[in-house]
Amino acid sequence: MPARKKIGLQTVAFSRPVAVVGAACSVGPLEGEGPLRGSFDIVYPDMLNGEASWEKTERTMLRETVQCALGKAHLTCENMDFMLAGDLLNQCISANFAAKDLGILLLGLYGACSTMAESTGLGAMLVDGGFGMYTVAAVSSHYGTSERQYRFPTEYGGQRPPYSQYTVTGAGALLLGFGAYFQGLLPRVAHFTVGKVIDLGRKDPFDMGSAMAPAAADTILRHFGDLSLSPDHYDLVLTGDLALVGHSLAEELLNRAGLSLKERLQDCGLLVFDRSRQKVFAGGSGCGCSAVVFCGHIMELFRLAKLKRVLLVGAGTLLSPTTFQQGESIPCRPCRSL
Amino acid sequence: MPARKKIGLQTVAFSRPVAVVGAACSVGPLEGEGPLRGSFDIVYPDMLNGEASWEKTERTMLRETVQCALGKAHLTCENMDFMLAGDLLNQCISANFAAKDLGILLLGLYGACSTMAESTGLGAMLVDGGFGMYTVAAVSSHYGTSERQYRFPTEYGGQRPPYSQYTVTGAGALLLGFGAYFQGLLPRVAHFTVGKVIDLGRKDPFDMGSAMAPAAADTILRHFGDLSLSPDHYDLVLTGDLALVGHSLAEELLNRAGLSLKERLQDCGLLVFDRSRQKVFAGGSGCGCSAVVFCGHIMELFRLAKLKRVLLVGAGTLLSPTTFQQGESIPCRPCRSL
Repeated sequence: MPARKKIGLQTVAFSRPVAVVGAACSVGPLEGEGPLRGSFDIVYPDMLNGEASWEKTERTMLRETVQCALGKAHLTCENMDFMLAGDLLNQCISANFAAKDLGILLLGLYGACSTMAESTGLGAMLVDGGFGMYTVAAVSSHYGTSERQYRFPTEYGGQRPPYSQYTVTGAGALLLGFGAYFQGLLPRVAHFTVGKVIDLGRKDPFDMGSAMAPAAADTILRHFGDLSLSPDHYDLVLTGDLALVGHSLAEELLNRAGLSLKERLQDCGLLVFDRSRQKVFAGGSGCGCSAVVFCGHIMELFRLAKLKRVLLVGAGTLLSPTTFQQGESIPCRPCRSL
Repeated sequence: MPARKKIGLQTVAFSRPVAVVGAACSVGPLEGEGPLRGSFDIVYPDMLNGEASWEKTERTMLRETVQCALGKAHLTCENMDFMLAGDLLNQCISANFAAKDLGILLLGLYGACSTMAESTGLGAMLVDGGFGMYTVAAVSSHYGTSERQYRFPTEYGGQRPPYSQYTVTGAGALLLGFGAYFQGLLPRVAHFTVGKVIDLGRKDPFDMGSAMAPAAADTILRHFGDLSLSPDHYDLVLTGDLALVGHSLAEELLNRAGLSLKERLQDCGLLVFDRSRQKVFAGGSGCGCSAVVFCGHIMELFRLAKLKRVLLVGAGTLLSPTTFQQGESIPCRPCRSL
């Protein structure tokens, strides 16, 4: 009988040190002018970056981000046992084309905006389980490809409601490795809480923050409950892309449930842009949003020892143009502490 | 340093017995009239089964299949630590809605037609890694929802080329558990070989068999190579849905590489229908194809001790209507032996 690593109903505690041995992120021009501009490894000059389509740009971005992370860590594609990756596009084409070019064995995931958290959690599970020395967790999203697929052609110039969000053009990659000898030097993944699919019947495809907030709050509460943590355990509880509307709602739901995180609760969708001078409506979204903030800004704060324990909370909206069913989240959340 | 479970470049060998503690499958009316009709747990009387849309039917089918597998194994949703599931629909809506109804924690996957193999392999990894006692690996596909999304509206009555395939309406679920006390009684997952994304530039969205065959052959060769197996090691090497065209091509590629499997090489897409009397063109396809054959027919042959070692080979076509890019496979293949 193996040692049981599941704590409570939804949380996994890793028994071995799974270290973040490398990280990189790349962004488009708008993100590159935002408040976190100093933390990105690559800033593309425009949305196409010389490619014939946004779809091609997105997959190039994902590939170059993984290559950048490998370079920074002095590792190669051959060192990577598996790549756990996904994106927002149908058939996860960005992840597949990138994996083909990189030659790393792909396990394709779909968690919508929660994919960075899902890939990190599963990647850590594979390392902890002894299935490989290194795994790559990577995701991408692109404003152009997402708008085309999920909403209107951008050429149409449709007006957006103020509570809508702006899909981040960006990719992030984390290299996870068995890190006994890294211990104490590198951040490591300590826990992974998998959330429940929660559907409160939201149907407005522009209001994703409200759809995701209950799922994010539920999983944060479950994580704190499973591990019996006090509200000040984490320096930062970082949601993926709830943005303005969803962030307030999540905060209210947590406060009502008795978990007051105050300024420790922040959101990548609010950090990545400066809403006062950038036209991004309620804030950033997309699986690239949490990826670029986490793989860039947060990793830098870890390096500078300004953060010790961070809980990254991904949540995804099941926004299907086919069924017009929407508002179900796919909350798969990894939780990491230094 | 954990024990290394990766053998060769692409294969994982499980260190603990991961047993298939339960299995179930459900199909639509056409599959229910096919040669394997005796092996299905549920046969739906028509394509809608009383629901308002094919999409709703598909998710109900997936939910009921998981419930059926649980019932047969005298287990409940509460016993399941994680569900690893996916489907062919954008945003993996069937898997997400089913997981919501079942209340099992979902890790969403996208591997196109290879998803049954991918979910089984990852599910076994989580059990072997000690992250849970039980995981569910489940997938679904539906002729109506797939045609609508990938090709033409069926009402349009477009003609199909003879090498096209017919998406299986069906769902399959395997319950994987830590099975020390089951050993010898139940089939168990022994190895999992993850394939490479291979793209030979095929672009015909109807000819999926030819697109997938090179990827399937490559992964079979890698599996036999990694484990140094003789051609007669397995009683059956079962590809997912290469159908008539892809099956011949895969056989030829394997023979050329010196691996002659002869009648041991079979394909779920050819087994599930009787092409002489059912209008299915080159044979069955879709992630439900390998799922219903494996969870039904093959599990029955295991029970009757007519099979001892089977290699299930899933391969998926990256058929994206958006980019018209196609012909890339997502080969994620589990390999199991009794």
